[in-house]
Amino acid sequence: MSRPLLVHFAGVEEGAWRVTRLQAVKGDGLPDAPFLSMHTSPQPRHRWQLRGVVSHTRYATADEVRTLAGVQEGLGRAGSTCAALIPIRKSAAWWSLAQDERREIFEEQSRHTQRSLKYLPAVARRLHHARDLGEEFDFVTWFEFAPEHLSAFEALVEDLRTTPEWRYVEREVDIRLARAD
Amino acid sequence: MSRPLLVHFAGVEEGAWRVTRLQAVKGDGLPDAPFLSMHTSPQPRHRWQLRGVVSHTRYATADEVRTLAGVQEGLGRAGSTCAALIPIRKSAAWWSLAQDERREIFEEQSRHTQRSLKYLPAVARRLHHARDLGEEFDFVTWFEFAPEHLSAFEALVEDLRTTPEWRYVEREVDIRLARAD
Repeated sequence: MSRPLLVHFAGVEEGAWRVTRLQAVKGDGLPDAPFLSMHTSPQPRHRWQLRGVVSHTRYATADEVRTLAGVQEGLGRAGSTCAALIPIRKSAAWWSLAQDERREIFEEQSRHTQRSLKYLPAVARRLHHARDLGEEFDFVTWFEFAPEHLSAFEALVEDLRTTPEWRYVEREVDIRLARAD
Repeated sequence: MSRPLLVHFAGVEEGAWRVTRLQAVKGDGLPDAPFLSMHTSPQPRHRWQLRGVVSHTRYATADEVRTLAGVQEGLGRAGSTCAALIPIRKSAAWWSLAQDERREIFEEQSRHTQRSLKYLPAVARRLHHARDLGEEFDFVTWFEFAPEHLSAFEALVEDLRTTPEWRYVEREVDIRLARAD
């Protein structure tokens, strides 16, 4: 990927993913929508729309990038009929920290990457950065997995919500999806 | 600053800063323009426009942030009648590096922050991140200084162009400005 990829997630009347649950985990939720669409261009008709860019890594070291690359699988696997979209906004306190302080909380204290590794390759993920776009969320993460890995996915999100890093989350919405076709 | 600040730099027919020189340092330049404007809203009429966001630090440690904060001065000083706008684009090779590899080149090898410190507070700077916005440049840095510090500013930019970090720069334009009022 030579340049960042802009992705639009939209709550829509008809789309590729059916919304099975939309839950406000922390702070305000989002309006209900029957379907969700994911496109590289803006969707003209939608109930809400979130934008984010797939961009360079922010905390992972070269070793961690190599480890992840050796384990993770990509989006669009035939068996991945379940998905989740989790938009997150972190606090001003988080963003006022320096790079080494954020890294320390992210990995040395919270083991974000290490913790996630044990759910790979069952869960495929793609992180979208949204803060610099002026969006209401800082990150939008897209997850895909097969129905038999739902409990692994539940364990992953529960696990991440116990960490010191998660104390800096001030808004989180958890949207669960099933492939519509 | 609780949320990123979006700034628009535009080459215009009439504005607060007169363009005294516009030079392509590496790669393509930008079209000539008699004046430059800097606004938080888009400018309707312009010859070209570059956008960037003032956002959180990407490489500086807490110690470095404290050291910089103790020395640097802000934009808008009465004597700062000279300015420069330097948009930069780095290569795909740079962006494919992990965070620790980019930090290593940025500071341990190139001493970007340490090198810049000796030109403070004479030169005031503000960095704008542009890559995730889909702009043609990755960064747009705005500099302000008094006419008597022009040679210090020249030394700063020359100095940064000698570093290992600068080998990853694939496009750079150097625009010099004088306050128009």
